[in-house]
Amino acid sequence: MTRKTSASIQQQYIRDVSVDCVMFGFHDYHLKVLLLQWPGESGWSLPRGPVLRNEPITDAAIRMLHTTTGLDDVFVQQFQTFSRPAESVQQETAAPSSRDSNPHRAPSLITVGFYALVDFDRVKPKVEGNFQWCEITEMPDLLFDHHEVVESALLALRKDLRYLPIAKLLPGKFTLRDMQKLYETILNRTFDRRNFHKLLMSYDFLSKLPEKKTGSQNKSPHLYTIDFEKYESALQDGISY
Amino acid sequence: MTRKTSASIQQQYIRDVSVDCVMFGFHDYHLKVLLLQWPGESGWSLPRGPVLRNEPITDAAIRMLHTTTGLDDVFVQQFQTFSRPAESVQQETAAPSSRDSNPHRAPSLITVGFYALVDFDRVKPKVEGNFQWCEITEMPDLLFDHHEVVESALLALRKDLRYLPIAKLLPGKFTLRDMQKLYETILNRTFDRRNFHKLLMSYDFLSKLPEKKTGSQNKSPHLYTIDFEKYESALQDGISY
Repeated sequence: MTRKTSASIQQQYIRDVSVDCVMFGFHDYHLKVLLLQWPGESGWSLPRGPVLRNEPITDAAIRMLHTTTGLDDVFVQQFQTFSRPAESVQQETAAPSSRDSNPHRAPSLITVGFYALVDFDRVKPKVEGNFQWCEITEMPDLLFDHHEVVESALLALRKDLRYLPIAKLLPGKFTLRDMQKLYETILNRTFDRRNFHKLLMSYDFLSKLPEKKTGSQNKSPHLYTIDFEKYESALQDGISY
Repeated sequence: MTRKTSASIQQQYIRDVSVDCVMFGFHDYHLKVLLLQWPGESGWSLPRGPVLRNEPITDAAIRMLHTTTGLDDVFVQQFQTFSRPAESVQQETAAPSSRDSNPHRAPSLITVGFYALVDFDRVKPKVEGNFQWCEITEMPDLLFDHHEVVESALLALRKDLRYLPIAKLLPGKFTLRDMQKLYETILNRTFDRRNFHKLLMSYDFLSKLPEKKTGSQNKSPHLYTIDFEKYESALQDGISY
């Protein structure tokens, strides 16, 4: 890419502003976050992207997640905007690699934080560089202020839990135990199995399938699927747990 | 101000980014929002301010509220970031008055929304131009996307109500009825008087004063004041209503 082309692309972006995304996935009963390591960078970070001058900011987050993971129907939720005064950013840009034209790794003064709820198995990162799903309790050192961003995203997720379609973190077919474990993992507490299943079944958004989950010791091996129209409707009033 | 000085001040700001503030006040049992009309502008807007490259964004909101109203210990809460694609901003800037060097009226692509909870009687706007407190149910046409910003602020206020120090909307001395009316006004519903007062008194943050409110028909004319240390502590767990 010539200098001129690079400069003209830069002009399409809002300078000093980025979107950061905490992509939550649920695997083996652990809550995980997708981390990226850009070529030439030593540290890990959340997916970060620039914002075009001509797009709503939520579109910037969705576009960035699409180019990063290939997913194109992701639930994203803005949760907090973070600022980092120029002085701290200047220190960071002293490292030559940060001055690269790759907007994903440019530090920014203002970053709008989104979280995404994705089906772990459907994410196939397409970006150059390394990526890993990392358990939320075992994060490595992160670039920028991304530790704070992850912490804040988790707090926001817990706070809004009853209004969020967290079933998007589950595969298409799941057991009631899977759903209970999802709640328990996010909230870091346990629920009584019978009461919790009874509560779930009091809503109309779960459909029991003829299939059962095999290969695991499970008192309720029946598989369920979700009717997302009814689910959305129940989420309007909030789902108790 | 010379062109050069003006340009050098502009460089201290983050271009295309602003903070907007929905300043809530409570007066005569109505929830009100402070609106400004800048000299030469035909429409009303929320207080808007620029963000310095060297300050955390919350400081930008507090600084802007200080220069606008003279208050310097205001409770502010970030609630949502709004974006307005460049095309719509370009239409707006076609009006000559919007190109003025006053950063308060410059349109911006990204605006971080804060709300503030203030004691109505303590606000003495210091800015050049008109200002008015406007009932939230009777807003005039607003500049920019400020109708959406006010709507979103009210939704955020309702959603987080139990964790917010809304007593900051009351004067230093108030009756239980004042506090009940405050909740009722924000939530647009009514509460049973006796149950509500009993609930309030179950917390330890209210201190009964020897004085009574005079001149109004009031079954509970006793004046109360708040112990903000105990109040903050109760807010950690959320205050029921």
